[in-house]
Amino acid sequence: MFNAKVKSEVLKGIIDVTSPLVNEVKLNISPKGISLRAVDPAHVAMVDLAVKDKAFEEYKATDMELGIDMDKFGGIMRLSSSGDMVSLEYDEETNRLIVKIGNLVRKMGLIDTAGMPDPKMPNLSLPAKIVLKASEISQGVRASEAVSDHLALTVSKDNFELSAEGDTDTVNLKLPKDLLVELNATSKSRSLFSIDYFSNMIKPVKGEDPITIQIGNDNPIKVEFDIAEKKGHVTYLLAPRIESE
Amino acid sequence: MFNAKVKSEVLKGIIDVTSPLVNEVKLNISPKGISLRAVDPAHVAMVDLAVKDKAFEEYKATDMELGIDMDKFGGIMRLSSSGDMVSLEYDEETNRLIVKIGNLVRKMGLIDTAGMPDPKMPNLSLPAKIVLKASEISQGVRASEAVSDHLALTVSKDNFELSAEGDTDTVNLKLPKDLLVELNATSKSRSLFSIDYFSNMIKPVKGEDPITIQIGNDNPIKVEFDIAEKKGHVTYLLAPRIESE
Amino acid sequence: MFNAKVKSEVLKGIIDVTSPLVNEVKLNISPKGISLRAVDPAHVAMVDLAVKDKAFEEYKATDMELGIDMDKFGGIMRLSSSGDMVSLEYDEETNRLIVKIGNLVRKMGLIDTAGMPDPKMPNLSLPAKIVLKASEISQGVRASEAVSDHLALTVSKDNFELSAEGDTDTVNLKLPKDLLVELNATSKSRSLFSIDYFSNMIKPVKGEDPITIQIGNDNPIKVEFDIAEKKGHVTYLLAPRIESE
Repeated sequence: MFNAKVKSEVLKGIIDVTSPLVNEVKLNISPKGISLRAVDPAHVAMVDLAVKDKAFEEYKATDMELGIDMDKFGGIMRLSSSGDMVSLEYDEETNRLIVKIGNLVRKMGLIDTAGMPDPKMPNLSLPAKIVLKASEISQGVRASEAVSDHLALTVSKDNFELSAEGDTDTVNLKLPKDLLVELNATSKSRSLFSIDYFSNMIKPVKGEDPITIQIGNDNPIKVEFDIAEKKGHVTYLLAPRIESE
Repeated sequence: MFNAKVKSEVLKGIIDVTSPLVNEVKLNISPKGISLRAVDPAHVAMVDLAVKDKAFEEYKATDMELGIDMDKFGGIMRLSSSGDMVSLEYDEETNRLIVKIGNLVRKMGLIDTAGMPDPKMPNLSLPAKIVLKASEISQGVRASEAVSDHLALTVSKDNFELSAEGDTDTVNLKLPKDLLVELNATSKSRSLFSIDYFSNMIKPVKGEDPITIQIGNDNPIKVEFDIAEKKGHVTYLLAPRIESE
Repeated sequence: MFNAKVKSEVLKGIIDVTSPLVNEVKLNISPKGISLRAVDPAHVAMVDLAVKDKAFEEYKATDMELGIDMDKFGGIMRLSSSGDMVSLEYDEETNRLIVKIGNLVRKMGLIDTAGMPDPKMPNLSLPAKIVLKASEISQGVRASEAVSDHLALTVSKDNFELSAEGDTDTVNLKLPKDLLVELNATSKSRSLFSIDYFSNMIKPVKGEDPITIQIGNDNPIKVEFDIAEKKGHVTYLLAPRIESE
């Protein structure tokens, strides 16, 4: 059983976070909220998302799974305006999700979740951690896209640094400790990542909202932030690119 | 003779209503106003439009016909800003329409109307009639586009209903009598229509403006609304799609 | 040596004026400011641009040349928001331009200027001169694009006229002396120009800002206006099209 009412923005947030990485996902429904964990088709990145029941205006559920086509669900949510209340109900008989926006009733066919994997979150020990405002980093990522397909992130005791190198052109963004919300590192950590993936991971966070980043040396990056008015949380993992000398 | 001055918006309204259905039209000019009636190339829909002389700031005309390329005329009107006054004058010598916007003089070649048909408006007896605000129905039509290429419209004694069915997905929008401006039906009427055509027919009407819809059982639909600050009127007819069982 | 700080808008203005005509340009740097002169690949048009040191917030330079890829430079400037301060510094060692926007450091590879020509500004004696507001002419140029690929400009004692002729359609924009800022002509001058080129030459000027135009009979046109808050000046030359009878 799944029966909930929620602001349009909360569902749009879930779609924004998920759809750049994976299209077909298994949504885990429980009495305490919804969650999903999925790996992208290229097995380079993982998204882990949890939204508490408190993020919903109304919420009633038993443990169950919903197989969602995120593109299709995104199309439905684009029918709603910001501020709209959306109600969701699982129709067991026809295996469809009934989405109601105002007087509109949209029944969406679900995907079979039988073959869908349950990826485990790897246990990573990442020595460096920073927290920064989204606006501090987005320009640097956009600049990097013009010169390379990968960028290096470096955290040292006093700085966070983003850099990208092309044949003739380079990008460098150095943020000293006082421009960061938090910096926690005893030594220098540096890893290389795909700009495309990293760009998608920070894009859902806007303006002054904080992003938490943890890195190591040639290790995956962990990117975290809150959604759904802090009643939801997103964790991304992204595998490093190996530096070719 | 045709010599008129009119607000840019009135002409843009005529173009918006006509150009999705037909490109080359015969405009019937008379001392009382202008009108056109045309059938789309696939012979599925008809547009009938009449704008009274009172919709114009200045208007002087004898009975005559103008063959207009609506795409070209639309391009000219895009040169005008909202609030601009546009003057139109038929130049008999060169068979062109002289369009003046500010200091700009744009002479537009006309199409020969000799071969153009004069479609008759069929006499339809459609038992069910509703009037509703454009904003009540537009979301339902957009939603339908994602699941099918046709939708069903149903009017019963107490409701107006729009529905579309795909293989796994459905759309349903039920508007009870109190959400409609008017509902007039003694029994249930239901017909199926192409979403593309129907969508184009309601698109020119915005927000709270009323649309009048008349339907029968497997019969054409009649869609009507006012333009040109109620000094013009549009009637669309759209043939039904036959329901395949 | 080149070391300067300038408002983002000034650099965007230089790019807007140059990039529709030429992509790779040689920027001449001197202690008094920067300038460039370039001919488009088809040898139909020339752009001459000078921006004084006073247009910059800070400016220090010796005589030198910078080979700039305008598309790439435009991409970098799009990273800046209006109001941003941008600092530019030539890095002699690596032959790169170091562009700083906030904390972002973008090093841009430069083009070898060795093979780049130094076009001379031809000595033209153009008898007719007008000054007009950009808004008075832009609509006429847009209208012309729909009917032909060239337009005629005519200056007589009392009028400026723009006209374009297609097979069936025409455009005419006649501006009497009192709608112009200035008109200086003792006889009638008329030349024909490519609409594409002419359109690009007036596009950078907005609203009420003045454009100075000088023409003769079947002679090049000279289009001039200020940029960088009047601390910079642009001169375009455009070869006439020969009228085919």
